[in-house]
Amino acid sequence: MRLSVTYHVRADAADIAARAKGIAVEQSVEMPLEAIDEPSVLRDIVGSVEDIADLGHGRFAVRIGLALATIGDDPGQLLNMLFGNTSLQEDVVLADVDLPEALIASFARPRHRIEDLRRIVAVGQRALTASALKPQGLPPERLGQLAERLTLGGLDFIKDDHGLADQDYSRFAMRVTQCAAAIARAARRTGHPTQYIPSLTGDLDQLRSRAALARDAGLACVMVAPMVSGVSAVRTLARAYPDLAIFAHPSMGGLRIAPDLLIGKLFPLFGADAVIFPSHGGRFGYSPETCLRLATNARRFGALPVPAGGMTLQRTPEILDFYGPDTMLLIGGNLLLARERIPREAAAFTAAVAAHRYA
Amino acid sequence: MRLSVTYHVRADAADIAARAKGIAVEQSVEMPLEAIDEPSVLRDIVGSVEDIADLGHGRFAVRIGLALATIGDDPGQLLNMLFGNTSLQEDVVLADVDLPEALIASFARPRHRIEDLRRIVAVGQRALTASALKPQGLPPERLGQLAERLTLGGLDFIKDDHGLADQDYSRFAMRVTQCAAAIARAARRTGHPTQYIPSLTGDLDQLRSRAALARDAGLACVMVAPMVSGVSAVRTLARAYPDLAIFAHPSMGGLRIAPDLLIGKLFPLFGADAVIFPSHGGRFGYSPETCLRLATNARRFGALPVPAGGMTLQRTPEILDFYGPDTMLLIGGNLLLARERIPREAAAFTAAVAAHRYA
Repeated sequence: MRLSVTYHVRADAADIAARAKGIAVEQSVEMPLEAIDEPSVLRDIVGSVEDIADLGHGRFAVRIGLALATIGDDPGQLLNMLFGNTSLQEDVVLADVDLPEALIASFARPRHRIEDLRRIVAVGQRALTASALKPQGLPPERLGQLAERLTLGGLDFIKDDHGLADQDYSRFAMRVTQCAAAIARAARRTGHPTQYIPSLTGDLDQLRSRAALARDAGLACVMVAPMVSGVSAVRTLARAYPDLAIFAHPSMGGLRIAPDLLIGKLFPLFGADAVIFPSHGGRFGYSPETCLRLATNARRFGALPVPAGGMTLQRTPEILDFYGPDTMLLIGGNLLLARERIPREAAAFTAAVAAHRYA
Repeated sequence: MRLSVTYHVRADAADIAARAKGIAVEQSVEMPLEAIDEPSVLRDIVGSVEDIADLGHGRFAVRIGLALATIGDDPGQLLNMLFGNTSLQEDVVLADVDLPEALIASFARPRHRIEDLRRIVAVGQRALTASALKPQGLPPERLGQLAERLTLGGLDFIKDDHGLADQDYSRFAMRVTQCAAAIARAARRTGHPTQYIPSLTGDLDQLRSRAALARDAGLACVMVAPMVSGVSAVRTLARAYPDLAIFAHPSMGGLRIAPDLLIGKLFPLFGADAVIFPSHGGRFGYSPETCLRLATNARRFGALPVPAGGMTLQRTPEILDFYGPDTMLLIGGNLLLARERIPREAAAFTAAVAAHRYA
């Protein structure tokens, strides 16, 4: 059985057939075909060029068939076979993969569907709301106070900044305990079950012990960055803690893998229930088309798209019209600008999302 | 204490000051500075622009000071703070980091120095030799036969292709047992202590159990791809198995991080004792300058540079003159082309390295 993988390649028209064959070999047997004397390897394992399409401007879409048998059921090995060595060639972008059902079935895919995340925060059909605890450098009490302010605004989710790890000035255990307590306290006042999403970092042992601490603190969600923690670790974590919804952070995602693929398809495939990504019009260069494809891909997997990265309260209607209600809006810095007025700004954000009428 | 980080940025001259400040904020507090009311965060944690140098052609070298306190001692968190979000901006390349001794001391750095690797294979001052077991798709017995042929040529090291994982057609345990036995058997005939380097894949649990299996098979070396397995996992593995020398594979290294930094400095920092990289003139686009900087960086850490990726027997003298003797030459496909003449070709490779007189 074959996996159909598409690469975008910058090349001269005269070279593209050879380049395509080169990628097919690089991502399968990685050696001269003349040196292979096993017929079954030549027939079943060597990558095959399925199609070459001219995209114009010296770019080509090359579709390669790779053997599913080379991958097994390990997420890291999937990345390895999709793009491992070819990632080192600067004129090639891994653009897309058709994931066969047999592969999907052996991987994690989200266990917490969009409707489950809605249920956790008792929200019906509207888009979900979120903000982030920052800045790096604050002690746990201060982060707790900030979490309390945000919760008083009635937000659905409050996540750690992905930079919050286990630093001397803010130990993971202290931070999570304090923020979880602050949010629960404030949520009792608002009557809205705001959820805290702590960021998990470190190796698999640390990810697991931190997930256990989050679960023991009564939390329902955690965040992890697959390209930092390792994609196999994320899948193992998802299996070990099926009750925790996993948010994937895109940190280190700048791999020249198309983001709609890496974040929209692969992170969910590895077990992410929600995927955070830099939305167009913010601090990052993703186009509206890329964002839409990413969100659509994620939803097809049942994973929740979480556009972020420079979103503002003012843009809420536009963002909602763009992404629709199966979305979590994540506004971090722009909300935090309000300082002591954070509860009010957060409430305005909440209200704007609740009141939105889609165009 | 600050970490000095250099980014190469494509920008208009009129924008570069703002872009530099943007990166300093993105890689530290990731929020509007106006929203921060804690003086110690503004003073100690927010990144600072230390220098902007015009590289010409619309490119600038921006040097940012980042707080060491945000990193702690986790490799993943280091990547996170160096390039996490900024990796998503297509016009920025992470170019270099000055690693303070305090940071280096808390990380792994290589435990097996170049002289130790030489000692394992009883080689004096010459460059070390290696080849790779391929193709993907062969059963363990066939890989064992291939390993035997290569060993009969007197090579120093024989590594797994990085695509060999734990597939149905070649289970890790079977492959390692068979290849280790085949190499040991052939090495008794040659009298040269050829070493096998199996590739470890999967999550940290699998990496550890596979490392244990390698050690129990009497092996001294293993290979792992940090950008696939996760950099924190590599460091943990290095600490758990201090007797095993770790070879880092560059798979998925196409992160727009300068390779001389990622592979030459960071992988050793995370515990790699030897770093494999695609040498210039082979299948990849690294320039001779990049390769030389990468090798020099690795050696400064006491890690062994392993140029690879399309090397040939014919090029051996040139490669040796370029890299010098503190190097392992890795020739894979080109040696394998010899099929039944592999022992002879491998012997020619061995002899060429042994006889080389540096220009």
